[in-house]
Amino acid sequence: METIKISHGSGGQQSAELIKNLILKYFGNPLLSRLEDAALLKAAPQIAFTTDSFVVDPISFPGGNIGDLAVCGTVNDLAVRGAQPKYLSVSFILEEGLSIADFKKILAAMKARAKEAGVIIVAGDTKVTPRGKCDKIFINTSGIGFMLGNANIGAANIRAGDAVIVSGELGEHSAAVMNTRHKLGIKANLKTDSAPLNKITTALIKTLGSDVKMMRDITRGGLSSVLNELAVGFEIFENQIPLSQSVRAACELLGLDALDMANEGKFIAVVKPRSAKRALKIIRANKYGKDARIIGRAIKGGKVFLVTPLGVKRVLRAPLGEVLPRIC
Amino acid sequence: METIKISHGSGGQQSAELIKNLILKYFGNPLLSRLEDAALLKAAPQIAFTTDSFVVDPISFPGGNIGDLAVCGTVNDLAVRGAQPKYLSVSFILEEGLSIADFKKILAAMKARAKEAGVIIVAGDTKVTPRGKCDKIFINTSGIGFMLGNANIGAANIRAGDAVIVSGELGEHSAAVMNTRHKLGIKANLKTDSAPLNKITTALIKTLGSDVKMMRDITRGGLSSVLNELAVGFEIFENQIPLSQSVRAACELLGLDALDMANEGKFIAVVKPRSAKRALKIIRANKYGKDARIIGRAIKGGKVFLVTPLGVKRVLRAPLGEVLPRIC
Repeated sequence: METIKISHGSGGQQSAELIKNLILKYFGNPLLSRLEDAALLKAAPQIAFTTDSFVVDPISFPGGNIGDLAVCGTVNDLAVRGAQPKYLSVSFILEEGLSIADFKKILAAMKARAKEAGVIIVAGDTKVTPRGKCDKIFINTSGIGFMLGNANIGAANIRAGDAVIVSGELGEHSAAVMNTRHKLGIKANLKTDSAPLNKITTALIKTLGSDVKMMRDITRGGLSSVLNELAVGFEIFENQIPLSQSVRAACELLGLDALDMANEGKFIAVVKPRSAKRALKIIRANKYGKDARIIGRAIKGGKVFLVTPLGVKRVLRAPLGEVLPRIC
Repeated sequence: METIKISHGSGGQQSAELIKNLILKYFGNPLLSRLEDAALLKAAPQIAFTTDSFVVDPISFPGGNIGDLAVCGTVNDLAVRGAQPKYLSVSFILEEGLSIADFKKILAAMKARAKEAGVIIVAGDTKVTPRGKCDKIFINTSGIGFMLGNANIGAANIRAGDAVIVSGELGEHSAAVMNTRHKLGIKANLKTDSAPLNKITTALIKTLGSDVKMMRDITRGGLSSVLNELAVGFEIFENQIPLSQSVRAACELLGLDALDMANEGKFIAVVKPRSAKRALKIIRANKYGKDARIIGRAIKGGKVFLVTPLGVKRVLRAPLGEVLPRIC
């Protein structure tokens, strides 16, 4: 079996061969292929800039692999800030012994996701550690997006009464990774939801402008973390939260709460009431938003409440401690 | 001893506390402290963008730690492309059990180096892996710089006769890390040379414009790799290459070649002959360039030759295989 060797990280001839014969085969473009210390890029007057490292275990699971997450995660961080994602950097930390076949699958996933999202990979780096000093592969992606002219995203814009929309069913990514990692053998159709959301977010902002007050992707820590990070009060109706039967069953079995679980292709939007229905329509028109729902509204005060189907109101807190390590 | 816990990577309350009570204490600024998914930044029409992951072992060594490398490395990648470094992202992968005291030393080094280089940290991410799944701490930094108006850096601009300048003594970083890692006990003054080079590179370009044909920082793979990456011929005079007595002694003891060894605060510049002396003066005026020397010149053909003190000419190749894993 062909594997990554320690010399692939030397910075010498074998590093150059790995980049030329493998990485550029997937990611090559006129900017990246120059292999300069930094890529020279045209920019816009206002840009968004973000970074994320991915350490998910296992590196592959139903519906995707670490490469899907690495591209979609950074694309989505730019998208929810009201930017059009444009450029990505990719930095690999590889463990000696990683199979080249596995690495190729990851590169292929990244290539496909970058194409889907309309971004190009313009800068990169590869390090190799001896066996046992990292776990197969870690990926950092950083990204630059151009701000959409009519975006005005910020939690400070939210007013009581604004509608809260969730773009689809929650908890799928966590459930899929957990089922694979711990070989739980849950037969239900548990697949990661990893997806680029920038086409949806761009359509929302282009159509509704500053009526879109806030967007966040719902990753580590789940919906309950996102809602609690904003220093805004919310009232969320439990029976409006989209949840698949599979995730519901997995949560019951494992004693987990889907609201604390990570997603890799879902976001919330807080929208002016007059635009709530149009926003929902725009999100649902995209395959990654077909199960979107209005789940609640902003309220005065800083607390987040969950209203149960029986009308009982309880405070929804961010999860304390680790729900599931290395989920992304 | 206070240590990093797996829950610090959860995305929930304890992640938020780590960021607020520790990371923002060092890196806080109005852009980063918003803790948005992406930072919104003013840009220039032409920017440079780069990324680097740091996995050095050990994480601390005479003269610096992994934090110094992470900031200086990315600053230098932007600088040698003819950009003024402006914004950094920082992404940590932390091993459960890392001492908070060690983490603080790294954060302090990053803060000091960012200040020295004139860059601000605007975006971040933190992941935690269970014990044994990474090695203490890995850091990715990505960076954005604004292109200097009169920069025209590119290997294609090099002509036969152009002067090759090295900014200082080579091999110090590799020798210091190796001495520490393997407890070689070499008593000589071996310290990392990690330093931000952007003040020197900016001064060069502002004064000499397009007479500065090419710059590269001399990192993994050493001078021999850098010279061989450019598809340009060079003739380098061995007795002109700046080398300290300490590094010379360490290389003899270890059977290594300083030309293959990594540096973290050195670069080469290829300059039009009429500007060679002025370039040397500008580089030497900075404390990080005081030992700069003209070491050779560009020649026709794509081969790199080393001329020994006795006048013997041999081909200088990039190192094959790994000189020293996890050097940066």
